[in-house]
Amino acid sequence: MGTSTDGSMQTPASPKRRPTIADVARAAGVSPTTVSHALNDKGYVDVHTRERVKETARALGYRPSIRAQRLRTGEARSIALISSMPYEVAGGASRLGFLMEVAAVAAASALTRGLALVLVPPVMGSRLPLEQLDIDGAIVLEPTADDANVAHLLERGLPVVCLGRQPGNDAVPYVDIHSSATTEMLLQHLKDEGSQRIALLIGAQERNSYIESRASYQKFCAEHGMEPVIAVADESGGEAAGRDACATLLREHPSIDGLCALVDAFAVGAVQAINGHGLRVPDNVRVVTRYDGIRARSCRPPLTAVDLHLDDMASQAVGLLFDHLGGNADARRSIAPPLPNLVVRESSAGVEPQMI
Amino acid sequence: MGTSTDGSMQTPASPKRRPTIADVARAAGVSPTTVSHALNDKGYVDVHTRERVKETARALGYRPSIRAQRLRTGEARSIALISSMPYEVAGGASRLGFLMEVAAVAAASALTRGLALVLVPPVMGSRLPLEQLDIDGAIVLEPTADDANVAHLLERGLPVVCLGRQPGNDAVPYVDIHSSATTEMLLQHLKDEGSQRIALLIGAQERNSYIESRASYQKFCAEHGMEPVIAVADESGGEAAGRDACATLLREHPSIDGLCALVDAFAVGAVQAINGHGLRVPDNVRVVTRYDGIRARSCRPPLTAVDLHLDDMASQAVGLLFDHLGGNADARRSIAPPLPNLVVRESSAGVEPQMI
Repeated sequence: MGTSTDGSMQTPASPKRRPTIADVARAAGVSPTTVSHALNDKGYVDVHTRERVKETARALGYRPSIRAQRLRTGEARSIALISSMPYEVAGGASRLGFLMEVAAVAAASALTRGLALVLVPPVMGSRLPLEQLDIDGAIVLEPTADDANVAHLLERGLPVVCLGRQPGNDAVPYVDIHSSATTEMLLQHLKDEGSQRIALLIGAQERNSYIESRASYQKFCAEHGMEPVIAVADESGGEAAGRDACATLLREHPSIDGLCALVDAFAVGAVQAINGHGLRVPDNVRVVTRYDGIRARSCRPPLTAVDLHLDDMASQAVGLLFDHLGGNADARRSIAPPLPNLVVRESSAGVEPQMI
Repeated sequence: MGTSTDGSMQTPASPKRRPTIADVARAAGVSPTTVSHALNDKGYVDVHTRERVKETARALGYRPSIRAQRLRTGEARSIALISSMPYEVAGGASRLGFLMEVAAVAAASALTRGLALVLVPPVMGSRLPLEQLDIDGAIVLEPTADDANVAHLLERGLPVVCLGRQPGNDAVPYVDIHSSATTEMLLQHLKDEGSQRIALLIGAQERNSYIESRASYQKFCAEHGMEPVIAVADESGGEAAGRDACATLLREHPSIDGLCALVDAFAVGAVQAINGHGLRVPDNVRVVTRYDGIRARSCRPPLTAVDLHLDDMASQAVGLLFDHLGGNADARRSIAPPLPNLVVRESSAGVEPQMI
């Protein structure tokens, strides 16, 4: 079924040298401009000539230069994936987290659209050097209300898509990460397992996930006649901040028997604080968290968490950004992936460890 | 200590518009070419003029355009990190593996050198579209002897650094991933724990790690009067291939009491096969693997593995590539990071699960 090579076709001077557009032009008996138009389906080129040029290019093994295309179109052909979380939460020992899980899928999704994905992880002790990056647009994870990275990108006039809405900025398209639904599900699970006094532990930063979680939690407490107990920790404090915040919670509210710690690093710190208090998880206090990553799974006991369908989120974010790259005014402003699923583990369910 | 802004300095017409090189030229009373030379320390510019231009640029908040710099220098200012493992091993459910752990560190390391890191994960069912990428060089993880990605990059004349030597190709600079030392350490550990008939399970592909492991294993067997039993599985078969290979091993060599499964996916499959055979890990067969990732940690029982110091490897790979980007003929051909450390877990040590 393959196209057979025309035996009379000229071959480039050296078989090792990569064929150029001039080689294709010479072999097809047309000008280099005609080759360019024919291969890019631009300009007026007779249909037979177009086919002949394309076949010649195939036969010679001609590949257009991405560098030349970039210079011609002014496109970078690349997008950045940017973490807006501090290094202490998203970098270092826990770098195999949310960002990288999204990155793996987003990179593959971008490649299939002809885009390179530039990975911009948190950098210790310094702001991200975004001005170094020649990109066409960016995906930013869970930006804060005053996110400096988003501000920089918008100032450069670059399309931005957020994974998790930017608080107070409806102008930036986003993929909904379902923080309200996630919080409701975690709280309902704790209640179903028997917890009656559930506290919420969130980050101090003004991220949409915390804003939505706080609202969901307050609604849940009101509906179930539960006294709201909300602790706040600074993300840049990592596990230690979660541990300290939970220790304070346990001193001030000793009757707590359930904890929804939205940040996985906080949840791991909270388990340490509970143990340090002479209590056990889940017997005395059930603990749940949001992101089902290596921290949740390797915690002792393993933490009940949520499958956020990051695959869907990541590829939807790339798709949404792709739509906006073209300057399409009709492109959607937001997308909602499938609702999350609960992943129940020993930290809340009191089941025996599964031993094979 | 900071430089104070000259009150007499002109400001750009609109405070929102990003200042251009023309704004700096106008404010400093020189030509745009002089501004460019002064800021890039090129050409002849009087030392006082140079300082005045630099101060003006600072005061106006001028940032050079990375796009303009790229066009001028012809550099892409980006490098790619490329996985040469099949999707079944390095993608999908196990995407948070070796590649992404290296990627997180390499991306940060590249950023500090002014380079963007383009992430190129395995793509299901298709070859990597590297010709799309405008890059200055690439890091390739554990290439096979006939790696198509390395061949493509070298054909384009791009500098390449391998993480793990490419078999049969000493021309490509590499970071040593210490496969001989890793295998020796794992085998010695199994023996120290009491295993007397140890089998090796490696991938079928011609990767340097398998070649080195096989040689180390044969040397170890000869030294300890052990009959060598080597099983080979196709990486693209993932966990199932490891399970099948181990099941065959157990049928043909029922006295095996130790297994060194180099690929983590194979090790997880091997545990399934051992259980399916009515045997227990580690009581009947001790199992160890190489990469200490989420698979090793979340396996039941958790797998003894090796801390390869991927942080060091990743930043050394970026540093080595950076040296070669400049066309430096004296740049080193290889680097060896610190030797790996054993991470002992229940799959080989017969210790009680650590419960906090």
